Amino acid sequence: HQILPRWTQHSRPFRVINSDRSIKKGIMADDLEDLHHKVMDVFHIHCISALVLDEDGTGIDTQDFFQTLKDNTVLMVLGKGQKWAPQTKHLPGQKKVERKRM
Amino acid sequence: HQILPRWTQHSRPFRVINSDRSIKKGIMADDLEDLHHKVMDVFHIHCISALVLDEDGTGIDTQDFFQTLKDNTVLMVLGKGQKWAPQTKHLPGQKKVERKRM
Repeated sequence: HQILPRWTQHSRPFRVINSDRSIKKGIMADDLEDLHHKVMDVFHIHCISALVLDEDGTGIDTQDFFQTLKDNTVLMVLGKGQKWAPQTKHLPGQKKVERKRM
Repeated sequence: HQILPRWTQHSRPFRVINSDRSIKKGIMADDLEDLHHKVMDVFHIHCISALVLDEDGTGIDTQDFFQTLKDNTVLMVLGKGQKWAPQTKHLPGQKKVERKRM
């Protein structure tokens, strides 16, 4: 629906994770459609139900919004029935401070 | 940081959520009217009663105020009878600190 000059169509790097954040892959993509195809290949997913920002779960459905994403943005791929959930902020090895009993 | 041709006009990215914050979508819009149309399409809403800031429930009714919003501002769409409520800050798995009885 938009006329894009040829020069904007260069490959850009993204970082894609699965829904439980156990796998993270660097993927180059020309556009949103290209990213969908590559993500399906890399993650062996037959049907992507959504690509969302890892940061806040924003759904990336359109090429024009996709274009505004910075290089190396972390995206989460969701398959059927999978949902985004915020990343827990506790770093590995970091334990919750337990309050001393009075 | 990037030379953008004129055809991108004033399209800017916004992140729009529904009233229960279960869906969040990245949407590009030229102006407030355009955003209204796109939100109705994306969320399958026939009538928008308000677009408000997710942050504090401020109603965005005018184009001039809308223009002052930063890119990727999170907006909540409200349908008939829906109301804005502040986001609870507790992350999943995070429990309220229970006060010890003295």
